[in-house]
Amino acid sequence: MTPDSMYPPVDLRSDTVTLPTEQMYDRIASAPLGDDGLDGDPTALELEAEAARLLGKEAALYVPSATMANLLAILAQAGRQEVVLAEAASHIYVTERGAAALTGSFYQGIAGVDGAMDLGLLAQALGPGRNKLRTGLVCLETSHNNAGGAVLPLTHMQAVFAVARDAGAAVHLDGARLMNAAVALGVPAAEITAFADTVSLCLSKGLSAPMGAVLAGPTDTIQRARWHRKLLGGSQRQVGIAAAAGLVAITTMVGRLADDHAVARRLAHGIGQLRGLSANEPQTNIVQVDVSATGLDAAQWEAALRKLGVLARTWGRHKLRCVTHRHTGEREIDTALEVFRAVAASAA
Amino acid sequence: MTPDSMYPPVDLRSDTVTLPTEQMYDRIASAPLGDDGLDGDPTALELEAEAARLLGKEAALYVPSATMANLLAILAQAGRQEVVLAEAASHIYVTERGAAALTGSFYQGIAGVDGAMDLGLLAQALGPGRNKLRTGLVCLETSHNNAGGAVLPLTHMQAVFAVARDAGAAVHLDGARLMNAAVALGVPAAEITAFADTVSLCLSKGLSAPMGAVLAGPTDTIQRARWHRKLLGGSQRQVGIAAAAGLVAITTMVGRLADDHAVARRLAHGIGQLRGLSANEPQTNIVQVDVSATGLDAAQWEAALRKLGVLARTWGRHKLRCVTHRHTGEREIDTALEVFRAVAASAA
Amino acid sequence: MTPDSMYPPVDLRSDTVTLPTEQMYDRIASAPLGDDGLDGDPTALELEAEAARLLGKEAALYVPSATMANLLAILAQAGRQEVVLAEAASHIYVTERGAAALTGSFYQGIAGVDGAMDLGLLAQALGPGRNKLRTGLVCLETSHNNAGGAVLPLTHMQAVFAVARDAGAAVHLDGARLMNAAVALGVPAAEITAFADTVSLCLSKGLSAPMGAVLAGPTDTIQRARWHRKLLGGSQRQVGIAAAAGLVAITTMVGRLADDHAVARRLAHGIGQLRGLSANEPQTNIVQVDVSATGLDAAQWEAALRKLGVLARTWGRHKLRCVTHRHTGEREIDTALEVFRAVAASAA
Amino acid sequence: MTPDSMYPPVDLRSDTVTLPTEQMYDRIASAPLGDDGLDGDPTALELEAEAARLLGKEAALYVPSATMANLLAILAQAGRQEVVLAEAASHIYVTERGAAALTGSFYQGIAGVDGAMDLGLLAQALGPGRNKLRTGLVCLETSHNNAGGAVLPLTHMQAVFAVARDAGAAVHLDGARLMNAAVALGVPAAEITAFADTVSLCLSKGLSAPMGAVLAGPTDTIQRARWHRKLLGGSQRQVGIAAAAGLVAITTMVGRLADDHAVARRLAHGIGQLRGLSANEPQTNIVQVDVSATGLDAAQWEAALRKLGVLARTWGRHKLRCVTHRHTGEREIDTALEVFRAVAASAA
Repeated sequence: MTPDSMYPPVDLRSDTVTLPTEQMYDRIASAPLGDDGLDGDPTALELEAEAARLLGKEAALYVPSATMANLLAILAQAGRQEVVLAEAASHIYVTERGAAALTGSFYQGIAGVDGAMDLGLLAQALGPGRNKLRTGLVCLETSHNNAGGAVLPLTHMQAVFAVARDAGAAVHLDGARLMNAAVALGVPAAEITAFADTVSLCLSKGLSAPMGAVLAGPTDTIQRARWHRKLLGGSQRQVGIAAAAGLVAITTMVGRLADDHAVARRLAHGIGQLRGLSANEPQTNIVQVDVSATGLDAAQWEAALRKLGVLARTWGRHKLRCVTHRHTGEREIDTALEVFRAVAASAA
Repeated sequence: MTPDSMYPPVDLRSDTVTLPTEQMYDRIASAPLGDDGLDGDPTALELEAEAARLLGKEAALYVPSATMANLLAILAQAGRQEVVLAEAASHIYVTERGAAALTGSFYQGIAGVDGAMDLGLLAQALGPGRNKLRTGLVCLETSHNNAGGAVLPLTHMQAVFAVARDAGAAVHLDGARLMNAAVALGVPAAEITAFADTVSLCLSKGLSAPMGAVLAGPTDTIQRARWHRKLLGGSQRQVGIAAAAGLVAITTMVGRLADDHAVARRLAHGIGQLRGLSANEPQTNIVQVDVSATGLDAAQWEAALRKLGVLARTWGRHKLRCVTHRHTGEREIDTALEVFRAVAASAA
Repeated sequence: MTPDSMYPPVDLRSDTVTLPTEQMYDRIASAPLGDDGLDGDPTALELEAEAARLLGKEAALYVPSATMANLLAILAQAGRQEVVLAEAASHIYVTERGAAALTGSFYQGIAGVDGAMDLGLLAQALGPGRNKLRTGLVCLETSHNNAGGAVLPLTHMQAVFAVARDAGAAVHLDGARLMNAAVALGVPAAEITAFADTVSLCLSKGLSAPMGAVLAGPTDTIQRARWHRKLLGGSQRQVGIAAAAGLVAITTMVGRLADDHAVARRLAHGIGQLRGLSANEPQTNIVQVDVSATGLDAAQWEAALRKLGVLARTWGRHKLRCVTHRHTGEREIDTALEVFRAVAASAA
Repeated sequence: MTPDSMYPPVDLRSDTVTLPTEQMYDRIASAPLGDDGLDGDPTALELEAEAARLLGKEAALYVPSATMANLLAILAQAGRQEVVLAEAASHIYVTERGAAALTGSFYQGIAGVDGAMDLGLLAQALGPGRNKLRTGLVCLETSHNNAGGAVLPLTHMQAVFAVARDAGAAVHLDGARLMNAAVALGVPAAEITAFADTVSLCLSKGLSAPMGAVLAGPTDTIQRARWHRKLLGGSQRQVGIAAAAGLVAITTMVGRLADDHAVARRLAHGIGQLRGLSANEPQTNIVQVDVSATGLDAAQWEAALRKLGVLARTWGRHKLRCVTHRHTGEREIDTALEVFRAVAASAA
C-alpha cells in the first residue's frame, strides 16, 4: 500500500466541484424547453421568477456564470467614464477586472477589513471633488471569498447602501455565495439583498447545480442586463436544460449549507490543534489555513496534501484555502485532518 | 373551427428552436462530469477534442454561444486599435457589434455580394496607407445568414485567406451554420476551415443541441480565448451537462441537414408559384421570401401567417426569413405553403 | 546648374504648411493671457466667442487640433455601444479611427459619392431593427478631403440633418476646411452649419494659424466636450498665445481663400493639358491628379516632382494630391505646372 | 478704502498661472517654424532634443499638456487588459482616470505615504497569482502634488524601478514638477529619471512657459507615443510657436525654482505661527494649510482669503493648497501672511 492510496480523495479546492443531485437530473430530463432568444424558455422563466422572489427583486436573469452576472450588473448600472467602487480584496476587483477594463468604467478598490470596505474611504471616494468622475456603482460581496468566507454585517451593508444612495450610486451585491451568508446570519436572503439594487447568485457552488447563476434587480436594470447578455454571448437557446438544475438548487439545496458550515468549523478547529498551523474561525464554508510557521510554504503544503489525497488551494504564499461542500461530510473532514496532521509531522 | 386552429403550428423563425434528441438526453444523463474551471470536465474535453478533429484544428473550446465564440476569436486575434474586417452584412458586423465596441478593436464592414466580400475592397482595406491601423483579423461567414444561407465558394475563401495572410492578418470563420455549408458543398468541414485560422460552430441550430458552440483553432489562440472566456463569464463548471448534447450533435446530426436543405428548396419553389411572392434558390436551409409585390409589407405578412399557425421572421420591410430544421418535415412545409397561399390570396 | 535647383520649391502637400502672418505675430505679442484651466484665458475666450458667432452656435471651445475637435464631438454626443455614422471615405472614418476604437462607440462607414453619403444607406443604417444599437451621431465633412475638396450640397446636408433628427441622432460637421466650402458656396459659414449640431473648424490649414482648431455647438454639448478635453490632455494654460493667431485667422483670413481656389483651378486646368494626366475640377483648394496613364505610379511621380522642387502627396497608388494655399500664388503654380510638364515628358 | 482693495492680489492657486517671460516672447517671435505633421517643426525638434538630453533619455516628444504626456506614456507602454499601477493619491490615479477608463488598461491604486507607494503592496500587486492580469506599467510622481509637493527619495524610486523591472513592467515618472524635485534634491534631473523608462515634464508650471509638456523615453516608446498623439489629436502644425517658449523654459528657468521653494518655506513657517493653522514643511513649492482647528472649513477660508485679495485652493474639506511661483516673491508672501492673519483673527 503506497502513501498515495492510504486515504480516499477529499477535494477541498472549491465548492464548485459539487456534482448535480439525482433530483436535478430528473428535472433536467423532464423540463419544458423553449428558445430563450425567441419566446423564452419556460424553465428558465420559472427559475428567473423563483430567483426574483427568493432575492426580493422585481426580476431576474439566468446567466452562464456569476462572473457574467457581475459584469452585466456593472454594464447595466455604470456608464463610460463612471466609477465602480469595490472592496479591494473582492472577487470583482481582484479576479474579474480583465473584462472590466473593456467597459470604459473605472474600477476603484476601497481597502477593507474582513471584506467590509472602510466607510471613511468609501465616503471620501463618493464625496465631491474637482473634475471628479461620477460613481455609478458600489459593489459588495457576501460571503466574502478572499476574507475567508466572512459574512458582511447587515449594519455595514445598510450603511454602504445609504451612503451610495445619497451619492446617486447604485449598489450591486456579488452574492456568488449569498446563500451561505443567509444561512450563517439565519435570515432570509431577501433581508440581505434589501441593501442592494442588484444581486448575483451562483447556482453551481454549494447549491450544486452544474452551471449557471442569476442576476436579480429592478425590471429595467434586468432588461438592460439582458441586452448586454446577448452582446457578450451569454444568451443560450433551450437553456432550460441548465435552468432546471438551478431551480432544484435554489428550492431544495439552501438549507443543507448549514452542514457545510458545521464541517468547516470542525476542520478549522482540528487544524488549530496542529503544531504550526492556524485557521480562521469560519463563519461559512471557507477555511483559510496559515502555514507560515511550519517551515513549508503554501505550494509545498499543497503538493504534500495532494500526495496523500487531499486537495486544497494555495491562497498566496503562506495560506491554503479549504472549502467545504456536499461531498465533504464529517468522514472526509476527519480524513483531511489526519492528512494535515501527517504533513505537519513530516514538516516538523 | 376557427382559422387560428386550421393548421398545426409550423415554426420557421429559426433553426435555433430545435429541441434536444432522445440520444442527447441519454448522453446528458450518463456523461462523466468535472469542474471545467479546475481539472476540466471530461465530457467538455471530449467534445473539444472531437470538434477540433472535425474542424481540422489543433484545439477547440466549448462556449455558451456562437456569439461568444466569435467575440473570443476577435479578442484572441485582434488587439487594441487594430482593425477587424468583416463582410458588411455578416452577423458579426451587423448583429454582434455591441460588444465589439468595447474591445478597442475597430470593426470595418466590407461590402459584398451573396455574403462574399468584394475582393477589391478587401485588398484596399488591407493595403498600405499613411498612419493606417494594422488589420488583425478578417472575418468570413458561411453559410451566410443575411445572404439567405448562401455558401461561400471555396475559391473565394481561399482568395481571402491568401490576401489576409499576405497582409499579416488572421482569418476567422463564423461557422454558426458551417455544417450546412459543408453538406451543401458535399465536402468535409475541414476542407472549408482550411481557409481560416479559427472557426466557430454553433451546436444549437440545425444540429439541435439545446445550447452551446465551439471555437477551434491553433493551440495558443485557443489558450488566449480560454483566458478571455473566463473574463467574460463564459466559463462554466460541470459543463458536461451541455457538452454531452453537443457531442451527440456533432457526431450524429450533421448528415440529416441535407433534409433541411431539401425542404427549404421545396418551400422556396412552392412559394415561387404564388402570385406576388418570390424566393431565393436556397443553397442551405434559409428561404428569403420577397413580399414587396403583394401589397402587404413583411410585418403584415408575419402577423397574417402567425394567425394561421405559421411563424416566420421579418427581414427588413419587404422580406421574410424562413428557416427549415428538424421539426419542419415535408408535411410541415406543405402546411406552410398552404398558409402562404391563403395569405397571398387574401392579400390580392 | 543642376536640375535640383532649377525651380524654387513649391509645397503642394497640404495647406497645413502655411506660416503665421505678421498680424498673427503682432497679436501673439500683445494678447492678454490667463490660465485656461482656472479663470480662463481672455484671448481664448474671445476666440471662442468669435468662433461661436461665426459658426452660428451657442458656444465654442479652442482645442489643439481638428482631430481632437472631432473626437470631442463624438465623446460628447455618442455613448458607449452607440453608433457613429460617417461617410466611408471621410477623414473621421478613415484617418481618425484609432482613438475612436477606444471610445466604446461603434463607427460605421456609409458609402458615398463625392463625399456625400448615400441617403438610402443612411436611412437603412438609422432605421429600426432587431437588437440594433442606437445611433448617437452622424458625421458630415465639407469640404471633403478624400473627395478632392468637394463641397457638400446644402440640400444634401439638409436631408442628412432631417433624417438624423428623426432618428434621434445628432449631426457633427467635420469642418476642418469649412471656410473653403463657405467661400466656394458663396454663403456665410453659419448657413452651412445650420445643418449640424456641432462643427469643428481647423485654424491651421488655409487660415494660416500655426496651430489649433475650434469645436462649436450647443452650450451643454460644449461643456461636455470641455470636460473630455481635460481628460484627453487637450487643456492648456496661457493658451492665448495660440488663440491669438486663431483670432486673426478667423477674422481676416477667410476671404483670401478664394485665391487658393482660383490657383487650384489654374493648376487643374494646366495639368489637364498634359499628356497622360487628368485632374478633378476643383471646387476648393484640392487638386487630385490621376497619373495612371503616364507609366509612372504615384510614388514615382512624387519622387520625380520632389527632385525638381515640387512637393505633392501620393493619394493611393495612382493619384497625387496637391493643395493650394497662401504660399502658392500664380507664380508658384506656373512653376509647378512646368515641373509637371517636365516629369510627364520624361515619363513618356 | 474697502477691505477688498487693501492688498494687491496674490495668486497662490497654482504655478500654472505663471506668464511667459520676455525672453520667451522674443524666442516665439524669431523661432523657425515647420509643419510638425510633415517634415517636423525645427523648434519643436530642438526642444525635443534638448529635453531628451536634460532628462537623460534617447528621445522626447512635445505634447499639449502633462496630462497628455502621461496618457501617451500609458498607451505606449501598457496594453489592453494590462494593469497600470500608480500611487493611490497620485495625479494620474486620482485626476487623470477619465481617459484611462477608455484605454482598456486597468488602473490600480497602491496606497502610499508622502506620495511613496507602500513597497509591500507594490510587490504584492506585481507578484504571481492565478489568472492575474499582466502589469504593463508602474507610475511614480515627483514632486507629488497631493502629498504637498513631497519629493520621492531616490532610494524609493530605485526600489520601485528594480521590483518593476523584475516583474517585466516599465516605469513611468509623472514629472509634471520634476524640476522642483531636482532642485530640492540638488541633483541633475537625469539622476532622478534614471529610475524610470519614461518621464513627463510640464513646461507651463514653475518653468513659466505658456503651455505644453514633453514626454521622454526610449526611441521606440516615443515613436509609439507619437502615433498615439496623432490619434488623440495632440499633434499640431507650426508648433514651434509653443515649443519656443518651452525651450526658454527648460534652458533658463530651472535654477530659479529654488526661490519658489524658499518663499514656500517662508509662507509655511509664517502660517505655522498663526493660531489654529498648521502647514507642512514644504520640500518644494507647495504648502498645504490645515484649517480644521480654526472653526472655518476650507471653502470658507478660500472665500475669506479671496475677499482680501489672496487666492488659494481648497484641498478637501479642511485644507488649502498654496503654490508659490515666479509671481509670488517675498513681498507677495508677506502680504499673503498678513491676510491669513486677518482671516484667522476674524475666525477666532
